[in-house]
Amino acid sequence: MINLASDNVVGASREILDAIAAANMAPEASYGADRFSREAEARLSQIFERDVKMFLVATGTAANSLALAAFTPPWGAVFCHEESHIADDECGAPEMFTAGAKLVGIRGFAGKFSADDLEHTIKRFPRGVVKAVQPSLVSLSQVTECGTLYSLDEIKAVAAVARRYDIGVHMDGARFANALISIGCTPAELTWKAGVDVLSFGATKNGCLACEAVIFFDPAKAAHFEFRRKRSGHTLSKGRLFGAQMLAYLEKDLWLANARHANAMAKHLSEGFANIAGVRMPWKSEANEVFAIMPKRMADALSKAKIFAAPWYTHSISMPSGEQVKDNESFLRFVTSFATKADEIETVLKTARAA
Amino acid sequence: MINLASDNVVGASREILDAIAAANMAPEASYGADRFSREAEARLSQIFERDVKMFLVATGTAANSLALAAFTPPWGAVFCHEESHIADDECGAPEMFTAGAKLVGIRGFAGKFSADDLEHTIKRFPRGVVKAVQPSLVSLSQVTECGTLYSLDEIKAVAAVARRYDIGVHMDGARFANALISIGCTPAELTWKAGVDVLSFGATKNGCLACEAVIFFDPAKAAHFEFRRKRSGHTLSKGRLFGAQMLAYLEKDLWLANARHANAMAKHLSEGFANIAGVRMPWKSEANEVFAIMPKRMADALSKAKIFAAPWYTHSISMPSGEQVKDNESFLRFVTSFATKADEIETVLKTARAA
Amino acid sequence: MINLASDNVVGASREILDAIAAANMAPEASYGADRFSREAEARLSQIFERDVKMFLVATGTAANSLALAAFTPPWGAVFCHEESHIADDECGAPEMFTAGAKLVGIRGFAGKFSADDLEHTIKRFPRGVVKAVQPSLVSLSQVTECGTLYSLDEIKAVAAVARRYDIGVHMDGARFANALISIGCTPAELTWKAGVDVLSFGATKNGCLACEAVIFFDPAKAAHFEFRRKRSGHTLSKGRLFGAQMLAYLEKDLWLANARHANAMAKHLSEGFANIAGVRMPWKSEANEVFAIMPKRMADALSKAKIFAAPWYTHSISMPSGEQVKDNESFLRFVTSFATKADEIETVLKTARAA
Amino acid sequence: MINLASDNVVGASREILDAIAAANMAPEASYGADRFSREAEARLSQIFERDVKMFLVATGTAANSLALAAFTPPWGAVFCHEESHIADDECGAPEMFTAGAKLVGIRGFAGKFSADDLEHTIKRFPRGVVKAVQPSLVSLSQVTECGTLYSLDEIKAVAAVARRYDIGVHMDGARFANALISIGCTPAELTWKAGVDVLSFGATKNGCLACEAVIFFDPAKAAHFEFRRKRSGHTLSKGRLFGAQMLAYLEKDLWLANARHANAMAKHLSEGFANIAGVRMPWKSEANEVFAIMPKRMADALSKAKIFAAPWYTHSISMPSGEQVKDNESFLRFVTSFATKADEIETVLKTARAA
Repeated sequence: MINLASDNVVGASREILDAIAAANMAPEASYGADRFSREAEARLSQIFERDVKMFLVATGTAANSLALAAFTPPWGAVFCHEESHIADDECGAPEMFTAGAKLVGIRGFAGKFSADDLEHTIKRFPRGVVKAVQPSLVSLSQVTECGTLYSLDEIKAVAAVARRYDIGVHMDGARFANALISIGCTPAELTWKAGVDVLSFGATKNGCLACEAVIFFDPAKAAHFEFRRKRSGHTLSKGRLFGAQMLAYLEKDLWLANARHANAMAKHLSEGFANIAGVRMPWKSEANEVFAIMPKRMADALSKAKIFAAPWYTHSISMPSGEQVKDNESFLRFVTSFATKADEIETVLKTARAA
Repeated sequence: MINLASDNVVGASREILDAIAAANMAPEASYGADRFSREAEARLSQIFERDVKMFLVATGTAANSLALAAFTPPWGAVFCHEESHIADDECGAPEMFTAGAKLVGIRGFAGKFSADDLEHTIKRFPRGVVKAVQPSLVSLSQVTECGTLYSLDEIKAVAAVARRYDIGVHMDGARFANALISIGCTPAELTWKAGVDVLSFGATKNGCLACEAVIFFDPAKAAHFEFRRKRSGHTLSKGRLFGAQMLAYLEKDLWLANARHANAMAKHLSEGFANIAGVRMPWKSEANEVFAIMPKRMADALSKAKIFAAPWYTHSISMPSGEQVKDNESFLRFVTSFATKADEIETVLKTARAA
Repeated sequence: MINLASDNVVGASREILDAIAAANMAPEASYGADRFSREAEARLSQIFERDVKMFLVATGTAANSLALAAFTPPWGAVFCHEESHIADDECGAPEMFTAGAKLVGIRGFAGKFSADDLEHTIKRFPRGVVKAVQPSLVSLSQVTECGTLYSLDEIKAVAAVARRYDIGVHMDGARFANALISIGCTPAELTWKAGVDVLSFGATKNGCLACEAVIFFDPAKAAHFEFRRKRSGHTLSKGRLFGAQMLAYLEKDLWLANARHANAMAKHLSEGFANIAGVRMPWKSEANEVFAIMPKRMADALSKAKIFAAPWYTHSISMPSGEQVKDNESFLRFVTSFATKADEIETVLKTARAA
Repeated sequence: MINLASDNVVGASREILDAIAAANMAPEASYGADRFSREAEARLSQIFERDVKMFLVATGTAANSLALAAFTPPWGAVFCHEESHIADDECGAPEMFTAGAKLVGIRGFAGKFSADDLEHTIKRFPRGVVKAVQPSLVSLSQVTECGTLYSLDEIKAVAAVARRYDIGVHMDGARFANALISIGCTPAELTWKAGVDVLSFGATKNGCLACEAVIFFDPAKAAHFEFRRKRSGHTLSKGRLFGAQMLAYLEKDLWLANARHANAMAKHLSEGFANIAGVRMPWKSEANEVFAIMPKRMADALSKAKIFAAPWYTHSISMPSGEQVKDNESFLRFVTSFATKADEIETVLKTARAA
């Protein structure tokens, strides 16, 4: 079986498991005060070249929702892509954590929106007009839901609009490491130097078991985070489980190595698909995801060979203009991970070619 | 260092770590659909002699709050001990998960309330009277915040009142295994046979790293749980982390063995304290917790010997009538766990005696 | 001064004031149990040819939000036009009252969406898929935010989709009377006979001071309404204030006479504008609102003559394709009411023509 | 019929009705920007000898809940009497408006708690301890639910504790005028000079139809109030309805005259009851409420004579120690109002005496 439906169908890197085991028996302070979590914060401050405030939680949904709530009152508006993960895939968690703030979707190709689109949308919600929810935050996903990336200039342009309208900038970095490797800049350049205020720093998909960091580049904004985390049930009593994972994830650049491998596997796959007649890729594969429209019989052949991908949505508003999945076609998402093997990719391509 | 401040300052049983490692690399369905989680549900159905619906989450706060929300509308009342964990120690999580229901505290000795106390309190909130929040659920803690236990008859009496007023019964079983061992009945007898509708089945404190089950004895009541869990960020993508822990916890009765050991250690400690002049225990140690009022210099001696206990609250409304912590006394909670060693207890007692 | 900025800048019909005064001094049961409110419910049951359950509140925001909450769990989705009043003009009240449900905007010309648009959008939120908020309700505005109307057939088509996907149908009838007069059908035909489950029946804009009814055509759906109303602070102690207004509003068809007059005034105005060079009306005036794009100097002339209209939004996604408000143009909304006088309309037209 | 069940069973003072009618037809700005509301704010600033920020809403529940929400985060604690109106009679509205804050009840005789009781309770929720909801506000009712009053010194003592723990002070003044008349001080002395930060200034029970002001003595605390009010559906479009009532209420001291009359009627009644054998009054009547325990046959005689009072709760924790309503007794609340007539009180007393 080759399962590329998501990068969360595999377990953890061996180093992560070892770290959990190594952190096990000695008594440690509870509720996030353990030394592993504290060291992880120090390590991230080095990596991001700035004193950050960091909190560990178990899921991306929790990380995003808590980050949003730190910037958005119940009468606030969070601007995001209309098909972003926070808008479409978290069952309303952001609304729960913010006590009912509004996520305002922005349309745009390939999971991205432009600075202009953002400004146009913000203007619909004038500051101080009581009937309008108040602009509070913009959230961009890096990597996006379409596997694409914002360039540094695009992020800076979005952040400039945000600053002009006095709202914060959140980056949903569930696949932050994959983005970083692709763009080839420093973590600081990809975030606060480009104007990002708070980052959901994903680790689960890239080699951990359950570990995401919310990173505040301005510690003042984190003032109430501990209460929000506790109150949402996301403060682990045996916090070492998170701390040990995050430390090992950063140790010896495991996070970068894992992402580099996953991205290479995706590149291998997308280059292979590009050479198979009948396969179209609506978006450039820029990280560790490959989206492919293919004949149904090719999809069936993969499935029969126990090669699993995720059926994707055909109503996507991020599609290239004119693109349409036909009745005899399937639209599939393939996601590679640290655990994907090169010969698995070969098998996928061989099977597809044969169909 | 001997840390008895809580049963969450230690790591996990070796078997739990091994199970996490063993469950690691093969692809598994995400978001709780993994085979470990499914097998854990089947195993719990056997243990509780009934088809249960079970959901795994990372913390007791999440387990309790999600269980409460399944039974309580925003205009509902949850009856609980005035100093229960859900009332005092979860930073308002039940209010967040229920969208603002009211926890109504009931007073009572040793962390417990009686069926009569419950009925008296329910009557303050007449059914159908619009200004009154509506009785929805009673929650009792087994083990209580004072380390004491409800007898089966006491639980049945509380549940009988609940049935009469048409409300549900929740048991906060963060230390369920310790209670079970002490009482010596079956899991079914301690729960649904006594009238319990939904159980927070704790595993973290008793040998897991981060794993709690919410167990519904009537699956119909679980209808919307998946949405509530996802929406609160508690649906792990790599759900095997939970499933593997829970399976190993139940395997070969590890959970019972761990609790039996912890309880024995507490018994050892409380019997020792009973023979030390100047030490008073306001409540009987019935599970794995020992609460002791002692001279300050004895507490200091323990502390100097790097023996840690948790300073407890002197305003407790659960105190025996007339009991008072004096200015030259300390009030401490000692919690034993699967990892506590008999010679550690000996050291504690020796140090106390010497002081 | 002629103020046509909204139909809420005037007071109440004389009959409404008289009724409030007449209902004044005798003791009445509090909190909505007064005989005026009860009689209003009976009267509405006659008018709608069906036993309805009715609740009175002070504002359209409360009426809409309470109606939505009766059909939508926190993890639910409410489908509505992207620029509907509930989405854009209530500061997130629907999110507050539903404890965080998601309003999903549908695009469409002139403030309306089609049954097909609705179905296309519902499909993005598959039933039972945990990450997706669950389809719960569709809300359509009659009159729309653009002053246009759904035909009976359009409503039926929308309701048919709703039934197929097992969701409810809400009608925001803040200007229900104006719609009814324009369409010329019965209240029953415009609502439950066309598939509407719950109606916000506006009265404030059409002659009352502060009075809106939420009308349930299926009383079972109203089961918890009283608790939701009380809990949101919308249960008046001296409920006669609402009851007396609503009774007088229905008495001798005052509501129909008021709306007929307001609509006639709007017709007068829009027909006048149609004959003034340089004035464009992006949408047909179908009730008591007229939207006009005009040269800035014409708008200035009106303003100088103390004729007030509401500046409208130039970013409207409801605009005819290609329509654009130019830099030297103004986009204004004029709303007529029961109190608008024919010679006021004449003055507006004369002033505009002169400019 | 003589209905003394509450001061909300009657209508409004004639002056209030006249003011509503007088404010009727001229165009006015909507949503609270009308000149009546603005003048009412100016007038209240004079009355309270300080620039206040004032907002009008329809109900005491809305006024209290919005005031609380301005001071309390979702993880906050509001301290109040265990049987206060906000705790027991608003169906959880404070929890809804604060997004789930916790109301912490304090016990005490006659609906009051002392500064010491408050401090003792605050200490249970240590600042910065993540598991504990954080002290945010104390709310005291003046008049209390038992018809009693806090003295100025008692209020100052409570406020001194509040300041020491850095929390705000709210006064639920649903019957503020009655309290003011009884105490005989200035409005400023009863509020901000005694340490009150925000006041629910009731007018509905004392002669208006539906009008309550939330008064902030520190305008900075009102920064987000407009959004909260709009979002909860409490911003009237025809705001003149509120503004006109409040202005007329304050005009020529109508509010004081009304309260003086109501209090005098209550004094008359309680002095009468004091001389009827078999009638006990558990609390001193200090404003416009009289609570009386009387033989059931006396209560029946009143009822037969169509004299209505409200059955009160026999479980009251505010009762004098040892006081108990016997099986053959009734516990009734009588509330007088501006509309109560002296001969009605005479009739009540005569009927009671005769029984």
